[in-house]
Amino acid sequence: MGQSVGKVETKIYKYEGKIKLTSGVEFGPIDIAYETYGNLNEKKDNAILVLHALTGDAHAAGYHNEEDKKRGWWDEMIGSDKAFDTNKYYVISSNMFGGCSGTTGPSSINPNTQKPYGLSFPVITMEDAVNVQKILIDALGIKKIIVAGGSMGGMQALDWAVMYPEYVSKVIVIASTARLTAQGIAFNAVGRNAILSDINFNNGNYYDKVQPEHGLSVARMIGHITYLCEESMHKKFGRRLQNKEKPDFDFGIDFQVESYLKHQGLTFVERFDANSYLYITKAVDYFDLSSNYGSLEEAFKNTNSEFLIISFSTDWLFPTSQSKEITKALIKAGKDVSFCEIKSPCGHDAFLIEFETQTEIIKSFLKKDN
Amino acid sequence: MGQSVGKVETKIYKYEGKIKLTSGVEFGPIDIAYETYGNLNEKKDNAILVLHALTGDAHAAGYHNEEDKKRGWWDEMIGSDKAFDTNKYYVISSNMFGGCSGTTGPSSINPNTQKPYGLSFPVITMEDAVNVQKILIDALGIKKIIVAGGSMGGMQALDWAVMYPEYVSKVIVIASTARLTAQGIAFNAVGRNAILSDINFNNGNYYDKVQPEHGLSVARMIGHITYLCEESMHKKFGRRLQNKEKPDFDFGIDFQVESYLKHQGLTFVERFDANSYLYITKAVDYFDLSSNYGSLEEAFKNTNSEFLIISFSTDWLFPTSQSKEITKALIKAGKDVSFCEIKSPCGHDAFLIEFETQTEIIKSFLKKDN
Repeated sequence: MGQSVGKVETKIYKYEGKIKLTSGVEFGPIDIAYETYGNLNEKKDNAILVLHALTGDAHAAGYHNEEDKKRGWWDEMIGSDKAFDTNKYYVISSNMFGGCSGTTGPSSINPNTQKPYGLSFPVITMEDAVNVQKILIDALGIKKIIVAGGSMGGMQALDWAVMYPEYVSKVIVIASTARLTAQGIAFNAVGRNAILSDINFNNGNYYDKVQPEHGLSVARMIGHITYLCEESMHKKFGRRLQNKEKPDFDFGIDFQVESYLKHQGLTFVERFDANSYLYITKAVDYFDLSSNYGSLEEAFKNTNSEFLIISFSTDWLFPTSQSKEITKALIKAGKDVSFCEIKSPCGHDAFLIEFETQTEIIKSFLKKDN
Repeated sequence: MGQSVGKVETKIYKYEGKIKLTSGVEFGPIDIAYETYGNLNEKKDNAILVLHALTGDAHAAGYHNEEDKKRGWWDEMIGSDKAFDTNKYYVISSNMFGGCSGTTGPSSINPNTQKPYGLSFPVITMEDAVNVQKILIDALGIKKIIVAGGSMGGMQALDWAVMYPEYVSKVIVIASTARLTAQGIAFNAVGRNAILSDINFNNGNYYDKVQPEHGLSVARMIGHITYLCEESMHKKFGRRLQNKEKPDFDFGIDFQVESYLKHQGLTFVERFDANSYLYITKAVDYFDLSSNYGSLEEAFKNTNSEFLIISFSTDWLFPTSQSKEITKALIKAGKDVSFCEIKSPCGHDAFLIEFETQTEIIKSFLKKDN
């Protein structure tokens, strides 16, 4: 279905100014890592900004080198004739502010000290991340945009609609929520705790040593449990043992699900920075779209976008009820909204798996009024 | 409702023999810590064995000293005129084999080396734990017994019915399951991983030093998320900040739910041994009542008990569907079974909270045929 965007590269936009963060801190300069797919039209009104989830990066589609051809995280969704059709749209993806894949974050070199920021990096919010994306969009000369994201990316899409109503024509929010619940905060807090209490954390100054990989790995394992669901875990692993007939009666790996989680933890620490994990999960904890407006309905009052809200039936991290809450508030605020729950056995991760149904729904939403 | 059993003390039964464990290892001697409430009748047929959950102990009812009057974990359920009525029944509670509250476990002194077992303690199963309880029941001269337990205690109650059909007249299984699911194994595996990767773990030899309290604390925090539910967390904490108007924009504690979890982790390490946590969660992972029988129905075929199965509507760790699976298998096997789902907003923890409804149901079940 559709065609890949092929070989791409990550670019860096260097912003030399400063921005005021939610915390009150002024911060800059900021590098913004981004990729683009397709072509910006003359009127510069065919851009779609896709927004990555917790540990994603700017590499959303295509591949970087011919050898490994490692596809971007939404490769199935971005390309010629795909959900985000690069024949028609100019698709932009940038690494989140605070991240560790090119955009300035705690692992970046502080120009004043020539050392990594570490914990001297300011604590950020989702709104700060959106303001950094806005710098890039401004630099590209774009005044009208469609925003789309899954999970944490969906939070940013909502923020875009509320913060920049004149810019955003359409919003696609997938497997997301308008505020993190107590349970969500709890899972993040435990993950952070595992990192903060790792002997190698060293108050965030570990860049010339070993990073707190045990803690980061435990945090990732906890995350992965919430991205799947009992149904998908049962199908994928059940109670099957890992390459053995009988349990080992020791504390090594007995079950397939243990092996899977262990692997997820180990590979994650090779590609992700523990400090970035702290900063980004904290921004997720702080996310509450209604907080400055009194209610969700009030938050949506000044938006000028059409909304598409998608949830997945077995997602228990950001369940359908939370998508319905967004939808109801939009209806109350008199906005144009479509909502769809996709039946899927894949839990929260479905937005990275269920491409066919998502493509169909998104294509028809993007066609509307065009 | 009802009257407390008052001041009690934990006794130790010293078993000097050896038992053969599921793993094939022969192990002994074994101390068994236990408490009893009420009086054993002359026919010795009025005993109820109550079985504790993951981190419980023998102290199920009453208090140990006049000063703190710290009540046992099921104090509301055990006493004169309570669910387990000590006017009529002789209630026995023992600390699980592998635990750290009086019964022999990894923190106990190995008589051969005069040092704590640590990881030289054999890996155990739920069946091994039940066999150790059976030693105590034999020592008390009891041949007929009622067994009752919540969560992991419910697993042991099921094992009792299957392993000792001639002994068990009635079985009460609350908020439990016939096998740990992949998701359950996953949560346990992450908790163990946090302990095993703590720098202070030292291959389990930490008894003369600091125990791996960061890892154990993270494990406990993960556990607590699964004992509550989003509904109870929302009611209890919501997104409320901890003693502040605005977030701190640092990595300390911002939200009440973070403070709660942190507290649960910190107090847990004062009362529980990390090695015991490893051994007991492993026994829970291995638990699968059907594994030796091909099916749950087959497992129940030789039982001679009446069963009462209770679940709670918001328990997502061992949800109602898993209690229904037990009930269906019992019906298929032609056994006498009552099932009840209690509506409760308290999640898995409800078996330690919803006393009134449990008492009513259990009382009427115990009255049956008497």
